[in-house]
Amino acid sequence: MAHIDLGLDETELPGISGLMRYRPETAKPLNQLAEVLLRAPNSMPPGERELIAAYVSGLNECKFCCASHSAFAAAQLDHGMPLVDQVRADLDSAPISPKLRSLLRIAGAVQSGGRTVTAAMVQAARAEGATDVEIHDTVLIAAAFCMFNRYVDGLGTFAPDGTDAYAQSARRIVEFGYGQPSSRATS
Amino acid sequence: MAHIDLGLDETELPGISGLMRYRPETAKPLNQLAEVLLRAPNSMPPGERELIAAYVSGLNECKFCCASHSAFAAAQLDHGMPLVDQVRADLDSAPISPKLRSLLRIAGAVQSGGRTVTAAMVQAARAEGATDVEIHDTVLIAAAFCMFNRYVDGLGTFAPDGTDAYAQSARRIVEFGYGQPSSRATS
Repeated sequence: MAHIDLGLDETELPGISGLMRYRPETAKPLNQLAEVLLRAPNSMPPGERELIAAYVSGLNECKFCCASHSAFAAAQLDHGMPLVDQVRADLDSAPISPKLRSLLRIAGAVQSGGRTVTAAMVQAARAEGATDVEIHDTVLIAAAFCMFNRYVDGLGTFAPDGTDAYAQSARRIVEFGYGQPSSRATS
Repeated sequence: MAHIDLGLDETELPGISGLMRYRPETAKPLNQLAEVLLRAPNSMPPGERELIAAYVSGLNECKFCCASHSAFAAAQLDHGMPLVDQVRADLDSAPISPKLRSLLRIAGAVQSGGRTVTAAMVQAARAEGATDVEIHDTVLIAAAFCMFNRYVDGLGTFAPDGTDAYAQSARRIVEFGYGQPSSRATS
């Protein structure tokens, strides 16, 4: 359970949900950031942006965020969880567009440290058709999940096993977006 | 210069300033997060919160963020830049309170990965008088700078040499807070 007393049942509000209930002042900009990066109108579909979030969360070994955003990506991608699993297992061979692969390579570099992103990586993404805004947003999504992952794990929050809780959250996120109260919490 | 075309003079809007001008949709929640974490009313003084930001940015070797938040911390701490330099050079011997030292140790763990924060580190901070909210905010400040640092460096932005530009920003941040236009940009 969490390193601090969140004053709530973490099995009902696991991971970042409990932290957001605990500190609404910081929850507000964090949710707004997630909404802008992952759901607002963008030339990159929401499923692809969630895939970047899931991929980085996997590299950071953050169980809660990786399971959550894998479910959110799967719910919005044609090939669902099998594709998410393929990307996470082997980016080089996963059946995705060259453009998305080049953006995920940039995201992976950001995860290990901002200074590891090279001009050649950016040029490769541009050669595959990525726009400057797409490159910008990829870097910021990857950077943001280096924050969210550390927030969730640095405070030792609870992460449910299995897939049910994450699939339930995916239905809520796809329909209502970030920043809406958890249906489990309000039920 | 930056990996993408920001459409502006980076010597006038270096580091995150240019990124925020480039993408105001993401700048808004990022500035709100910085304002809540670093300046809003809190039992931790703004100078100590900026010191956490500077310390983590130094560990991430982010020149722009480390110089900026070192200047912002120095402007709001009694012992100014010499104290910031001591903390960054040797946390164990720096003349700060045991409570702040224990929180900076947690911040350092967050920088290397959320799962490296231990219950013993949190217990040590609590034994020195840290509250749960202070521990929460320390973790989130450290996590947030793992984002800001990667954002600034992942896009290859320009960081001025010397201290003048950062001292000028410090005067603006201390007076007006995060999210106000740069005086250099509006002059």
